Amino acid sequence: MTRASVRNTRHAAHLDALEHAYADILASHGYDAVLLYSGQAHTFFADDQQASFAPFGHFLHWVPQPGIQHSWLRIRPGDAPLLRFHAPKDFWHLAPEPPTAAWTHRFAIEPTPETGPPATGGGRVALLGEVEPSLARELGAELNPPALLAALDELRLRKSAYEIDRLRDANRLALAGHRAARDAFEAGGAELDIQLAYLAASRQRESDVPYQNIVGLNAHGGVLHYQHYDLEPPARQLSLLVDAGRRDAGYCADITRTWAGRDADPRFAALIEAVTQLQQSLIDAIAPGVAFPDLHRRMHEQLGELLVDQGLVCCSAAAAVERGMTRAFCPHGLGHSLGLQVHDVGGRRDAKGRYLPPPRQDPALRLTRTLETGMVVTVEPGLYGIPMLLEPLRDTSAGRDIAWDAVASLYEHGGIRIEDNVAVTETGADNLTRET
Amino acid sequence: MTRASVRNTRHAAHLDALEHAYADILASHGYDAVLLYSGQAHTFFADDQQASFAPFGHFLHWVPQPGIQHSWLRIRPGDAPLLRFHAPKDFWHLAPEPPTAAWTHRFAIEPTPETGPPATGGGRVALLGEVEPSLARELGAELNPPALLAALDELRLRKSAYEIDRLRDANRLALAGHRAARDAFEAGGAELDIQLAYLAASRQRESDVPYQNIVGLNAHGGVLHYQHYDLEPPARQLSLLVDAGRRDAGYCADITRTWAGRDADPRFAALIEAVTQLQQSLIDAIAPGVAFPDLHRRMHEQLGELLVDQGLVCCSAAAAVERGMTRAFCPHGLGHSLGLQVHDVGGRRDAKGRYLPPPRQDPALRLTRTLETGMVVTVEPGLYGIPMLLEPLRDTSAGRDIAWDAVASLYEHGGIRIEDNVAVTETGADNLTRET
Repeated sequence: MTRASVRNTRHAAHLDALEHAYADILASHGYDAVLLYSGQAHTFFADDQQASFAPFGHFLHWVPQPGIQHSWLRIRPGDAPLLRFHAPKDFWHLAPEPPTAAWTHRFAIEPTPETGPPATGGGRVALLGEVEPSLARELGAELNPPALLAALDELRLRKSAYEIDRLRDANRLALAGHRAARDAFEAGGAELDIQLAYLAASRQRESDVPYQNIVGLNAHGGVLHYQHYDLEPPARQLSLLVDAGRRDAGYCADITRTWAGRDADPRFAALIEAVTQLQQSLIDAIAPGVAFPDLHRRMHEQLGELLVDQGLVCCSAAAAVERGMTRAFCPHGLGHSLGLQVHDVGGRRDAKGRYLPPPRQDPALRLTRTLETGMVVTVEPGLYGIPMLLEPLRDTSAGRDIAWDAVASLYEHGGIRIEDNVAVTETGADNLTRET
Repeated sequence: MTRASVRNTRHAAHLDALEHAYADILASHGYDAVLLYSGQAHTFFADDQQASFAPFGHFLHWVPQPGIQHSWLRIRPGDAPLLRFHAPKDFWHLAPEPPTAAWTHRFAIEPTPETGPPATGGGRVALLGEVEPSLARELGAELNPPALLAALDELRLRKSAYEIDRLRDANRLALAGHRAARDAFEAGGAELDIQLAYLAASRQRESDVPYQNIVGLNAHGGVLHYQHYDLEPPARQLSLLVDAGRRDAGYCADITRTWAGRDADPRFAALIEAVTQLQQSLIDAIAPGVAFPDLHRRMHEQLGELLVDQGLVCCSAAAAVERGMTRAFCPHGLGHSLGLQVHDVGGRRDAKGRYLPPPRQDPALRLTRTLETGMVVTVEPGLYGIPMLLEPLRDTSAGRDIAWDAVASLYEHGGIRIEDNVAVTETGADNLTRET
């Protein structure tokens, strides 16, 4: 089969499964139909300009075109899915063309210059999306009922073969960006130049990225969600951390790489290598039945060993975990579910929709599930010099076991994160980021 | 004086004038104080990612830092302006630093991890910005009273020397982008490559542009607000239209240039030259006392002559205007007010806040005022091949006077727009885009 026909076959199977699952979920929650609204860009206050846009994930689950605004999908089991596609007659903008790809054959597609919803078709109907409550009242529909949303979130957690292909393609494009980012760094670029090189090589504009790329030189690599792109390069080039993705048909890559610069402390290059090994060994442990919080705890155990091996602490690895030192060096979770949103839905609920809280010591852990075949997760251990977290240890007993000269160097270099995207298979893990 | 001290002196004069004007406006509308909210980024529905952000223009009028979110300004005549500056203690993001530039000396600056408003200080208070009505009720303040907003909009219409300097600086940066865009076009780049070259040379990221850049190759130049960046260049390279800006301390440049490509019809290069001459002659006519709608009508008269001269129509210039032919070739207005927003406020109200409607035939004209010293406007005549507007003429009497072969070529080339930013001076015009 050709690549295109594999794609169409897998996409058809994905939509078959989606139709069945929606039928089951609607029946079990007592709904006759559900209307999904794609969403629309937010207009700035007292202005005529608009913010960037991301569509509603449950809409994208069916309709693989992330830019669609003002459009509706009606799922009524027994009928073809109805896509009411907003296609204004307007010479100011390039009118969106109703989709015509193979997947559209099973849809009823209704292009319209209007923005309102289709008829509900009667019965008990749920309306999902960013919609005014008054519209739901007019339609006699229930707006965003939490139990139904939780069930649909759960459905997003396990990916079909089609979805895993898309995540793999997204990774391929993002990796081209990461290579270009490294080259721009080696050429001495500022953060803005590295970001633009990333976008050029991954073939995307900033408004279309799945999350705002993190491009941090030197100490900025230690700001976990660093949100700027400096216009000038620093005088000394110590390090670069790039956390950047790409969408493919809505599905998100989320990859982090860290590079040592021409003026780096040699210890920093060794740390990058050690974190990379640690990360690969955690990926080797991924399999169905593994509880992600256990893997997160294992990350801390291994970070403890790494801190000892690399001379950052002079107590035992177990003590480094016990006394909160590994958490001061890495305050975020090991990873999260990945899909149509970068922090994908359903990571903290069980199959019955009950909240699964993160471990008390690890409130930032976004995925508290036990892994199952078809889940796709990020694995992203890190090691940072964050003064706000480390300095408070200085005058404690733990502080006496920290090599503060090495920490001072780490402060300057910011930090390290290595992140791949991994699909859970029946027997283990498929690393979508490290294709050969 | 140094450049920096000129800037500080002019900025101080700008803020002096602002304090006096606010005192007068608040007194005449019966308010004791006004709270201005900077705004905050919109979070996407059912997601944890945020859209791009633009701050409230009236907040920026005082505080020249476009990225400030969750912050408040209280203007109470007699007191120093109070800037309640949101500065969270947060290792996830780079904490914003409270500003320290010369202009801050007259402000009381209150950094806070909180996001709520300052005390109103009592009396009758207006609250302006994108704020929940419930917050205004809690504070006992009036939310966005239209008469007060209209008076503050009016104040934005005439620019201080400081503001004109900023618009000039924004133009200088944007022009570097336009040169790089032309070079990327000559090198055969796709729309995305041209856009990224523009951003690199104008030193900005896409989220910070004052409006989404229009980068249209070939027929895309005829889509007035073309909103995509294609990833592949077209096989034949006919034309490029770039409408792209830059902010400086919040103030917006808005410049358009059009270039003929290597495969262009020679008639298209001649059209670009003719539209450029037409545009410069309209700028020569700018002076205090000139009604902008009159200048817009003059654009149509000159477009009529241009259509005749360039062989696009074979009736008289007057008939081309009379029969709506110039409007089919150029459906947008001559320009708009420019300042802290690209389509700046106050363009369609008179000094008393009364609505000044656009001419019936020109509903898209955004500036219906008579020009005064200190106003800054765009001057952006255009000439397009828009099938949705021209094809309906084909079977009319006007259609018999249209050279359809030339129009077919224009369809392929998209269109032409030439746009400069012009400050109205006491004696005429200062073209901020064509500094020598």
